[in-house]
Amino acid sequence: MSNKYTSNLHIEKAKTSKIKDVDFDNLNFGRTFTDHMFICDYVNGEWQQPKIIPYQAMSMDPSARVFHYGQAVFEGMKAYKDDDGGVFLFRPKENFNRINKSCARLAMPEFPENYFFEGLTTLLNLDKDWIQPGIGNSLYLRPFAIATDSAIAAAPSDSYRFMIICSPAKAYYKGTVKVLIAEEFSRSANGGVGFAKAAGNYAAQFYPTSLAQKKGYQQVIWTDADTHTFLEEAGTMNVFFRINDTLITAPISDRILDGVTRKSLIQLAKDNNIECEVRPIKVSEIVEASKNGTLKEIFGAGTAAVISPIEGFEYKETYYELPEIGDHSYSSILKNNMLNIQHNLAEDKNGWRFEVK
Amino acid sequence: MSNKYTSNLHIEKAKTSKIKDVDFDNLNFGRTFTDHMFICDYVNGEWQQPKIIPYQAMSMDPSARVFHYGQAVFEGMKAYKDDDGGVFLFRPKENFNRINKSCARLAMPEFPENYFFEGLTTLLNLDKDWIQPGIGNSLYLRPFAIATDSAIAAAPSDSYRFMIICSPAKAYYKGTVKVLIAEEFSRSANGGVGFAKAAGNYAAQFYPTSLAQKKGYQQVIWTDADTHTFLEEAGTMNVFFRINDTLITAPISDRILDGVTRKSLIQLAKDNNIECEVRPIKVSEIVEASKNGTLKEIFGAGTAAVISPIEGFEYKETYYELPEIGDHSYSSILKNNMLNIQHNLAEDKNGWRFEVK
Ligand SMILES: Cc1ncc(COP(=O)(O)O)c(C=O)c1O
Ligand SMILES: Cc1ncc(COP(=O)(O)O)c(C=O)c1O
Repeated sequence: MSNKYTSNLHIEKAKTSKIKDVDFDNLNFGRTFTDHMFICDYVNGEWQQPKIIPYQAMSMDPSARVFHYGQAVFEGMKAYKDDDGGVFLFRPKENFNRINKSCARLAMPEFPENYFFEGLTTLLNLDKDWIQPGIGNSLYLRPFAIATDSAIAAAPSDSYRFMIICSPAKAYYKGTVKVLIAEEFSRSANGGVGFAKAAGNYAAQFYPTSLAQKKGYQQVIWTDADTHTFLEEAGTMNVFFRINDTLITAPISDRILDGVTRKSLIQLAKDNNIECEVRPIKVSEIVEASKNGTLKEIFGAGTAAVISPIEGFEYKETYYELPEIGDHSYSSILKNNMLNIQHNLAEDKNGWRFEVK
Repeated sequence: MSNKYTSNLHIEKAKTSKIKDVDFDNLNFGRTFTDHMFICDYVNGEWQQPKIIPYQAMSMDPSARVFHYGQAVFEGMKAYKDDDGGVFLFRPKENFNRINKSCARLAMPEFPENYFFEGLTTLLNLDKDWIQPGIGNSLYLRPFAIATDSAIAAAPSDSYRFMIICSPAKAYYKGTVKVLIAEEFSRSANGGVGFAKAAGNYAAQFYPTSLAQKKGYQQVIWTDADTHTFLEEAGTMNVFFRINDTLITAPISDRILDGVTRKSLIQLAKDNNIECEVRPIKVSEIVEASKNGTLKEIFGAGTAAVISPIEGFEYKETYYELPEIGDHSYSSILKNNMLNIQHNLAEDKNGWRFEVK
């Protein structure tokens, strides 16, 4: 990225804060937004002046390409506060790199790194009262980019908008989760956009997930579209399987999102002397392991919940229950380790924490 | 669909028309819109009062789910005018049914039939001056639906907006087209959303198509994601191959859009005593046929251009050129037949024309 994008952030502060009206103990995920937002338009082949302005609705033409062709990508990250009021991000460079990978795959222009970081840190400084300290609390950050051109030809847009909006979040955790292993529907194809955080990947999962929910499962674990025999990932989480004392997770590919939590957990497993294999894993292998008692844990890994332990899974009309192992589970060990690093309560020997100054 | 959705269309007319400013001889596809638009919101589990209002920008919250999860579907159809000022649609019920199939797959509520037809015909009556008579002229109609809920949880929206916007169009035809047959990238997966006009399907094609364009090809013909050996469809067109005197087109599936033009051409071929086979077709078959001189034509079929003859294709770094056959080509015969039916210039023995009264 050329260095023409040097700092010139414009800031317009909100006249009053909405924070007084927020019940931080009863937050509905993703429905409450902070006082400010970051916005930067791409016009005539250039990113224009980045701005922070009061959070507000925007005017969109009905022909804006995002509505018609789904040319839109996003990220999900969190800011944490420690008891001294320090504000931290977790590996934000990973999210920055990933949104630009997503942009490239969707034929959208990449966003400049210093605009991203200056915007993000300035926004967090302005809205830092919205970050509650304490494990489980965070400010969810949603960078995203959309095609804004007013033209319905099926081709890439000429203009785009990059934004960051922020929403205070409690732990996303809602008890353990039962999952259905996909046998018919699929999430992505070889040569497709599954590895990107492309907007359309998510809507495509809503209907199959709603069918799973009707059967009593909260999530679907996707399998390869081709044979439905290899385990891939869940809707917004990568997945780990523990057989005996070994963790296994599928390799990333053009079908699977390269999750920041996943890659951090692979490293943390190493740091905790837990063996972790990254290799293709067959549904039949976990069914077999469940039958012979060697399948100890399955958990999802993603920014929202860090780790979601999975209670059981259905495959081919049979339900397989996972054993209860409690505090000594790998999921508890790794989750606590991650949360403590994120909240500045544990040593960060991998240099993942990023203090917002 | 229950009959609670009875007619109660609200109409607010534009004070002045923009039509004077439009150069109908130099239209850029999809950039000019008529004076009015149709809009209907879904709130609290119900479609609200449908409205026709002056074409205008709308206010959207940055957290609207369409921006984040691509929960959006659309249709593409055209209105034609004959020399007596009669206005016609072509098989509009097909588009209505298809958008509701798309909605179902994207976990969006289906739209009521009488709202759709009343909205569409009223809109066309209001904006009928925008439809130019003459073959090649039309008013392109874009029904679409988007998720409007202001919440960034990755789940179906609670509220939606259904709209119809209209854009005058000249023949989309831009000379013949060269295509690249996909060997690496793919458009859709088994069990995915390829059969739906889901917004995200289109953005996913922009980057691979841009790579093809750099090599001198205007379009990609997609193959099955799994083996890249079977021919599927192009970005916004189904595809027909003529070997000797037989047309062949791939069967529809959950990966391929059930095109109105495709299904009409299959019938018109029959009506014209042209043999047409609907069956899986291998890339190797057309490569072979090209080599031995039996491959006579390839053409794309879709609402935008009706038929786009293809001049040649590249596969595995080899370019195969199609012979020139001119006016006696099946593509010319069928295209003229279709256009004449659409413009009320030929007998419509299949009952496809729909007069807007
Ligand atoms: C499809 C998908 N897989 C996995 C993840 C987990 O990724 P991360 O750990 O970076 O949040 C997410 C959420 O971001 C996702 O959307
Ligand atoms: C993916 C795709 N295939 C084929 C078509 C052709 O369909 P129709 O003939 O209904 O316009 C379209 C355009 O609508 C399309 O988007």
